[in-house]
Amino acid sequence: MNKTLLLGLVTLMNVSPVMANRLANEPIKPIQPFIITEPDKVELGKKLFFDPRLSRSGFISCNSCHNLSMGGSDNLPTSIGHNWQQGPINSPTVLNSSMNLAQFWDGRAADLQEQAAGPIANPMEMAFSHSLAIDVLRSIPQYVAEFNKIYGSDDITLDQVTNAIAVFEETLVTPNSRFDLWLNGNDNALTDTEIAGYQKFKQIGCVACHNGEAVGGSSFQRMGIMEPYQTDNPAEGRIAVTGKDADRFSFKVPTLRNVELTYPYFHDGAYWKLEDAVDVMARLQLGQQLEEQDIKNITAFLKTLTGDQPQFAIPQLPPSTPNTPIPVPFEN
Amino acid sequence: MNKTLLLGLVTLMNVSPVMANRLANEPIKPIQPFIITEPDKVELGKKLFFDPRLSRSGFISCNSCHNLSMGGSDNLPTSIGHNWQQGPINSPTVLNSSMNLAQFWDGRAADLQEQAAGPIANPMEMAFSHSLAIDVLRSIPQYVAEFNKIYGSDDITLDQVTNAIAVFEETLVTPNSRFDLWLNGNDNALTDTEIAGYQKFKQIGCVACHNGEAVGGSSFQRMGIMEPYQTDNPAEGRIAVTGKDADRFSFKVPTLRNVELTYPYFHDGAYWKLEDAVDVMARLQLGQQLEEQDIKNITAFLKTLTGDQPQFAIPQLPPSTPNTPIPVPFEN
Repeated sequence: MNKTLLLGLVTLMNVSPVMANRLANEPIKPIQPFIITEPDKVELGKKLFFDPRLSRSGFISCNSCHNLSMGGSDNLPTSIGHNWQQGPINSPTVLNSSMNLAQFWDGRAADLQEQAAGPIANPMEMAFSHSLAIDVLRSIPQYVAEFNKIYGSDDITLDQVTNAIAVFEETLVTPNSRFDLWLNGNDNALTDTEIAGYQKFKQIGCVACHNGEAVGGSSFQRMGIMEPYQTDNPAEGRIAVTGKDADRFSFKVPTLRNVELTYPYFHDGAYWKLEDAVDVMARLQLGQQLEEQDIKNITAFLKTLTGDQPQFAIPQLPPSTPNTPIPVPFEN
Repeated sequence: MNKTLLLGLVTLMNVSPVMANRLANEPIKPIQPFIITEPDKVELGKKLFFDPRLSRSGFISCNSCHNLSMGGSDNLPTSIGHNWQQGPINSPTVLNSSMNLAQFWDGRAADLQEQAAGPIANPMEMAFSHSLAIDVLRSIPQYVAEFNKIYGSDDITLDQVTNAIAVFEETLVTPNSRFDLWLNGNDNALTDTEIAGYQKFKQIGCVACHNGEAVGGSSFQRMGIMEPYQTDNPAEGRIAVTGKDADRFSFKVPTLRNVELTYPYFHDGAYWKLEDAVDVMARLQLGQQLEEQDIKNITAFLKTLTGDQPQFAIPQLPPSTPNTPIPVPFEN
């Protein structure tokens, strides 16, 4: 294609050459706003996401550990579960999680729907059972009516519950970060420091794993390639799924979208400061000892990945009825 | 005033005679919508209300036990506090709580601002200290800027924190219940059953304590006047505040607004069914053994007191910084 034709095309598309080049050439792609096509299902999933009656105690909801006021995480090293049990691993953000190649740090769930079933029945987390959770929902006429309207069956099933939660979670994308504005051609969206950080991020190879729309989430990698990662956390990663020794200590590469909000970092949540996480990653994964200034620049760049956070009215949960099983917060 | 003049006045005011009569004569008054005059302060208070960093664990916020998706309560007999400690008493709803003559079941806080300081430092609840909570807020530039803008001082104080929370809580009124529509002259807002329930509610004397805008909240009364209340809960009520033996087992009369949503009932949260609570109250406070049908009617009336629930976007909390004290969810 000759240059005149290209420029003509670019003009026709109302796209600046800078924008076209960045979109085509940069290894990170902008997040597209989510277009809701099933609003009733999203509303139902939102209620379920916020409903602590899906837990044994009646106190823990999906939102407890994937808090949508806090970057879709709980900002704790590992989560607090039923009876204040200490969770085994850092709670990953639910934001943009639909872009992950699989769910959980070890990828043991294929997708969001499969993931959603896990914590409900995990004795360390919500400590309920699927059948008890369904019993609760079945006892609440407003839920029964909503499920019936959406799924067209008289009964409520676990598949419907996890489908609704997953469909809600799919809406939790965070477009319009400053970095995405820059990708889309707005030169003023980033400072020189932030651009310098991004260039270094690419130059030293972070981008090999942290790329695409989610800036991560698309592969499993060994934690500690050039140097072992020191941790007290016993999690062994993907070997738990594949049984392959080569997958020991391999974890899903987390998204860096909204990383400013999703501290503390790594699967053990051991690092609270983004600067420290950048330093550790560069050394352990890439064998690079970064200068102080490079760490600052990369950190500045990473903070430009914070996008629009979820914006919706707090859901109102339908009340329990005399037929609703009573929660069991304390065992006597 | 003669009848013609009265009718003329009523016409002039564009108020139907029914409406004027009900508003003047009924012992329950409609809730007025809250007009926000300090929007910045309300937004700040909302963030603080949802911020678990005001707790030692970083996990418990005001909203944990006064959940605005669940009638401003936690729907548990007694609350779950730090380290899963079992709270001593049922968590009262925060909805319409500005109308209470005092706060807490025993009225030990004069107002919402005084109340808000309590749970933060209570070792059974958020288990933090006021100075540590302030340290957290001071370390977060977005909070510092908001406090500075609103309170015009360079520092953040506990008084400012509790003032902002209280000002937010004052907005949590629930107008437009079906009962209030009826009070305002809409004859079709209630069914015959509901009206029959309301008549019985007045006739047997419930209305002596449950009256006014909040349908309660305006006096302390002994729990078990005609017959003692049987409970394992050791709370002794208002004697803890006054030291007077006459106040033993005296508690603040709770609001009945949104009572459909604020189960389980009474200071010990021992009753899950509204019908049972009605039956117990009639027997213990009024010496009345109600017929089954009367209990059903009164329950139907009480459900008409559910008003507009809080409607606002989930707040987005400003992130912690490297200077923010780290939460302590687990003691090691």
